[in-house]
Amino acid sequence: MSQAPQTAQQPVILTGDRPTGPLHLGHFVGSLRSRVELQHTHRQHVLLADTQAMTDNAHDPDKVRRNVLEVALDYLAVGIDPALTTIAVQSHLPALAELTLLYLNFVTVARLERNPTIKEEIHARGFGRDIPAGFLCYPVAQAADITGFKAQVVPVGEDQAPLIEQTNEIVRRINRQVDAELLPEAQALIPEMGRLPGIDGKAKMSKSLGNSIPLSSTADEITHAVKQMYTDPNHLRASDPGTVEGNVVFTYLDVFDPRKEEVEALKDHYRRGGLGDMVVKRRLEEVLQNLLAPIRERRTQLAADPGYVFGILREGTRKSQDITQATLDEVRGALGTFSFDRS
Amino acid sequence: MSQAPQTAQQPVILTGDRPTGPLHLGHFVGSLRSRVELQHTHRQHVLLADTQAMTDNAHDPDKVRRNVLEVALDYLAVGIDPALTTIAVQSHLPALAELTLLYLNFVTVARLERNPTIKEEIHARGFGRDIPAGFLCYPVAQAADITGFKAQVVPVGEDQAPLIEQTNEIVRRINRQVDAELLPEAQALIPEMGRLPGIDGKAKMSKSLGNSIPLSSTADEITHAVKQMYTDPNHLRASDPGTVEGNVVFTYLDVFDPRKEEVEALKDHYRRGGLGDMVVKRRLEEVLQNLLAPIRERRTQLAADPGYVFGILREGTRKSQDITQATLDEVRGALGTFSFDRS
Repeated sequence: MSQAPQTAQQPVILTGDRPTGPLHLGHFVGSLRSRVELQHTHRQHVLLADTQAMTDNAHDPDKVRRNVLEVALDYLAVGIDPALTTIAVQSHLPALAELTLLYLNFVTVARLERNPTIKEEIHARGFGRDIPAGFLCYPVAQAADITGFKAQVVPVGEDQAPLIEQTNEIVRRINRQVDAELLPEAQALIPEMGRLPGIDGKAKMSKSLGNSIPLSSTADEITHAVKQMYTDPNHLRASDPGTVEGNVVFTYLDVFDPRKEEVEALKDHYRRGGLGDMVVKRRLEEVLQNLLAPIRERRTQLAADPGYVFGILREGTRKSQDITQATLDEVRGALGTFSFDRS
Repeated sequence: MSQAPQTAQQPVILTGDRPTGPLHLGHFVGSLRSRVELQHTHRQHVLLADTQAMTDNAHDPDKVRRNVLEVALDYLAVGIDPALTTIAVQSHLPALAELTLLYLNFVTVARLERNPTIKEEIHARGFGRDIPAGFLCYPVAQAADITGFKAQVVPVGEDQAPLIEQTNEIVRRINRQVDAELLPEAQALIPEMGRLPGIDGKAKMSKSLGNSIPLSSTADEITHAVKQMYTDPNHLRASDPGTVEGNVVFTYLDVFDPRKEEVEALKDHYRRGGLGDMVVKRRLEEVLQNLLAPIRERRTQLAADPGYVFGILREGTRKSQDITQATLDEVRGALGTFSFDRS
């Protein structure tokens, strides 16, 4: 892959993560892996979304603070290259807060309450009536993030498409009012590989569900995780025929093992009977150890020099401040709000 | 009155106006007059609340923009002294936007919807279900304003006391979480003289109701306004007995005429009969002309030199940026959110 420098012609892409825990294999499959590719073909901006993380972690800012570094280490360890990608800390981009407040005037409360993603997340978090106002408003903050960078492409999970729609409604509303193509509409980029299931077979790998394999796992932790992994509960003896569908070990082999034909042969064997779980798990363990060893090694090196990592974040944040401030100035100028320079 | 310099011992007061139109006699009586006094005994900060004005004027930013200068002229013309009072443009204080986003995480949507002031204003503006999210959230933005300046005293109309209560709930919530008296609670300062009625007798003087006397009125406009003024509709001939209560001319004389005994004598005469509306109106006209002539004169001089006025706003805004940024840093530090300096 060529190390082409970012050019103005490349489309702008914005991604990011709430820093609420170290990233895991699910993030690797769902987004990190593709970011490493996309940085060669797009102007890529990645946000450490600590402001957004506060919308449901206001009681524990310390967790968010600590994980800014952890997630940055994950980024760099998997190969996100600060020469190709700007990595910024969201809370240090005041223009995004100002854009958010501005956009809140262009969205009704009823519209926010109708957002399917928000509805589902409110339910999942058990907020009931006690939804923090910041949580209800976070799609507007995301619209500020996306438009602040003038992102044209935003990778999102399938369930997050309504967030892009909300952004584009704001974009169209503002563009109509100023009668110009001031802000670009964003396109959702839905990843080919959807969610990686947890090691327990649940649909989603998640730190809080305790079914994840963090990118920073030690070799022993990987061994242990694979041992615990959900297979076919009816496959009691090696000689029994087994089921491959929903069997996490095979799902992971499909995702991570590059030797596709060998994996297909293993599946056939497992279905016929005569292939024990331990054999398949040993193979997966080897694959995961090979995948994660260089990531862990690089992560350990970087973690030993946090000053270097913070230097990267500082530089990415500074660049992002300039970009988002320029957008804020442009939006305000087009709308005609007060400015000392235009008075 | 002594021109005592502001000192750290004086309590901090925050006031301001949405710049949506030039200020009028109602503002003069309800707030401006007392600000001219309070600046000698308090550290006074005044906000030109253009960000807040956008919460119900997003369709017309130009109106808000133009009125920033108009309201600043009104301030300076009535005697708000930039050597004693900092006057700042709200949209140029990014720390307030950042504090607002932070505080939104400490307030529930249900709580915002319960706010009686908001309920009433939603009704008054006819928003129905289409309440802009920014409007629902503006009490939180006000909490950011008040705490951003660490204001201890906030002059508000009686109907706005719930806004101070909302601020103090956030203050207590944050102070409890950080286990320190980080932010001061604010006290509402309810003005002695409540609302000045409109010249048509309606309870509230308001530009949009067309019943106001702007501070920038010409002599002719004052004459015309007093002529139109609502008196006693049953007082058809001078010889008839008249009613003083609800008679706007007498209400205004009570407020503006320093010769209280003469006003009382006039009231008696009017009640007995034999005193024509024209006589009373001539007296009020003289009082208002005397009150407004020097204000208008000073306003005209200032309006001829907008660069001077913007210089004052620039300086006040710069000082206010420092104050509000220091508060934001302090709140973030106490909560323990991410900072490059504390990493």
